[in-house]
Amino acid sequence: MIDVKKLQRDFDAVHQQAPLVHNITNFVVMNNTANALLAIGASPIMAHAVEEVEDMVQIASSLVINIGTLNADWVKSMMVAGKAALKKGIPVVLDPVGAGATAYRTQVCKQLIETVKPTIIRGNASEIMALVNSSTYTKGVDSSDSSDNALNSAKQLSKETKAIVVISGPTDYITNGKDTEMVINGSPLMTRVTGMGCTATAITAAFAAINNNYLEAATHAMAVMSIAGERAANKAQGNGTMQLYFLDELCNLTDNILATDLKR
Amino acid sequence: MIDVKKLQRDFDAVHQQAPLVHNITNFVVMNNTANALLAIGASPIMAHAVEEVEDMVQIASSLVINIGTLNADWVKSMMVAGKAALKKGIPVVLDPVGAGATAYRTQVCKQLIETVKPTIIRGNASEIMALVNSSTYTKGVDSSDSSDNALNSAKQLSKETKAIVVISGPTDYITNGKDTEMVINGSPLMTRVTGMGCTATAITAAFAAINNNYLEAATHAMAVMSIAGERAANKAQGNGTMQLYFLDELCNLTDNILATDLKR
Amino acid sequence: MIDVKKLQRDFDAVHQQAPLVHNITNFVVMNNTANALLAIGASPIMAHAVEEVEDMVQIASSLVINIGTLNADWVKSMMVAGKAALKKGIPVVLDPVGAGATAYRTQVCKQLIETVKPTIIRGNASEIMALVNSSTYTKGVDSSDSSDNALNSAKQLSKETKAIVVISGPTDYITNGKDTEMVINGSPLMTRVTGMGCTATAITAAFAAINNNYLEAATHAMAVMSIAGERAANKAQGNGTMQLYFLDELCNLTDNILATDLKR
Repeated sequence: MIDVKKLQRDFDAVHQQAPLVHNITNFVVMNNTANALLAIGASPIMAHAVEEVEDMVQIASSLVINIGTLNADWVKSMMVAGKAALKKGIPVVLDPVGAGATAYRTQVCKQLIETVKPTIIRGNASEIMALVNSSTYTKGVDSSDSSDNALNSAKQLSKETKAIVVISGPTDYITNGKDTEMVINGSPLMTRVTGMGCTATAITAAFAAINNNYLEAATHAMAVMSIAGERAANKAQGNGTMQLYFLDELCNLTDNILATDLKR
Repeated sequence: MIDVKKLQRDFDAVHQQAPLVHNITNFVVMNNTANALLAIGASPIMAHAVEEVEDMVQIASSLVINIGTLNADWVKSMMVAGKAALKKGIPVVLDPVGAGATAYRTQVCKQLIETVKPTIIRGNASEIMALVNSSTYTKGVDSSDSSDNALNSAKQLSKETKAIVVISGPTDYITNGKDTEMVINGSPLMTRVTGMGCTATAITAAFAAINNNYLEAATHAMAVMSIAGERAANKAQGNGTMQLYFLDELCNLTDNILATDLKR
Repeated sequence: MIDVKKLQRDFDAVHQQAPLVHNITNFVVMNNTANALLAIGASPIMAHAVEEVEDMVQIASSLVINIGTLNADWVKSMMVAGKAALKKGIPVVLDPVGAGATAYRTQVCKQLIETVKPTIIRGNASEIMALVNSSTYTKGVDSSDSSDNALNSAKQLSKETKAIVVISGPTDYITNGKDTEMVINGSPLMTRVTGMGCTATAITAAFAAINNNYLEAATHAMAVMSIAGERAANKAQGNGTMQLYFLDELCNLTDNILATDLKR
């Protein structure tokens, strides 16, 4: 159950502190991700060279690792940056784009989880399910409901990794393995815009930078995403204008809008 | 001569089957390409790591190879993915961006054509002309009309490569070397938006995934592009809004619109 | 003091000559940069492969080197392309994105400056200040005003490098170390859109391609940027629509608008 006061507090804190979010992310979404971070008052930096990622982490408040267009060189930089972030103690948010689609993606994610110990992992249902080691989680579950399965996977992954796990979907689930928060705002049109999930990951990193109760931080980030997305979808004519109106709505969010729009 | 019923059939099939289109494409257009594929109901994946492209081809329904921002590593992945697609029997659409501008680009394209045997090659007139091996094609042509030359090049390239060849321009030509289709919808404003050609290539790959009469598939893809582009241009105020309205129009196309807007 | 007639002359020349601007730039901004160049009537090409950058420089009218998402391979290509441009005698515009943020970025910039001898360097205040070798410039300055410091740094950097130096900010300064021009158009909303500075760099390269009085060329480019930005901001609802309206405004600029909107 989201506490609006805490949501507003974190939203304001992102604007006031303007955390520097270091992104090692994919080519498809870099522009949108940077603009979304600017829209909520955070400060984005994209940097992936192995020569500088450790230094960049030193000035960053959080780190995004997004494997969307990974290759061996980028994975190397992700490892180096992730270890530096772990050592420094800043939150790391992992976006396991396409985990399960190829063996390489699944394996890289597992390696990142083991080495970097991400603070938060955000993906869609199938990505999260691909990352769970144990397959026992479904055994006791007498449900063919896929979102139940997904939530169970998220809980399991959280227990295995100690990370907060976020599943994006019609309802977003945010879990620490024990407690689970839900965000029910949003719009189906968000799924027609490429990289909306990646944007959610980056915004999560901005919130994690200012609230070290990461279950709260991730929940608030997803709420902000979903409220802005819902408002944008009400105006958009298709996935073209949706992309832009979403950024506009992020820019124009206020504590007041959060209070009136949040569905519970 | 485009048969509207077949155009509608293929348009509907893309929406119903939501083919997974694997793109190895350039940095400039990845975001737009992904959004355009989502807008017509297809499913985009961008992946270029040599470690995974073979696996990705296994789950894909077609493959785009676009050399816009090529380098040696990417070309290696294009070769590996292209050979896997050839072996699996899914269509490969080659976009020879900038062929003729540098020797490297021309040479890479010729190598890709020889090794991957693309199903469809889509480019602008100068790119297609740069790829024709024989220079005899102009000899018998008593015309200084450049689009005639371009069409002759396209036919020649099609004969040399067995690929369907598409030339984008004020009139789009789609040829198998013998039969030639034309698309006359469109707008000059489309040329002011970067990557419109790359988008056409990706949409062509989506249509090729659901219709293995590739002359038809490519023609229908170009018709859909051009109709959406024409509609967007009627509303756009410049190349900024054009980009977004184009995606919106793609989202909102219907069988009915295709029937009313198609020029013949 | 900007001479409107000369501004109009250069603006028209870009449209008439449509210079080919070769960009070795970052992943975040490639799409926007290409569209901005198309919007002002120039012709963009993005190419970074070491196999082809020398050839591409041969057909280009100017070269952009932007280190936003640098790594060792890209820096190598920047050096090769930059040396080819220097040899050919076409202008090179360097954008030292993030100079000062990491030692690697600062060092790469200094290496590029030494090797490529850029014609123009465009950055924000902190980037420019990070590139000045001498630290004596502030000693005699009895001012805590940061823009004064920045301008002094720009002058110093210009003297050290022989480049025209441009500092973007609420007021843009363009200096050859002795004479300084100012552009006071613009809008704070421009800073909320990622890559606006990178776009300014690319447009500067387009103007440098058609006017070899580089102080004038850079000033005119910044004036065009700022006028379009100011007009777009008057319509935009946030950083989403800002991005697109900016391109639209660039598309729709006329000599007349330049004359009426230029602030002096």
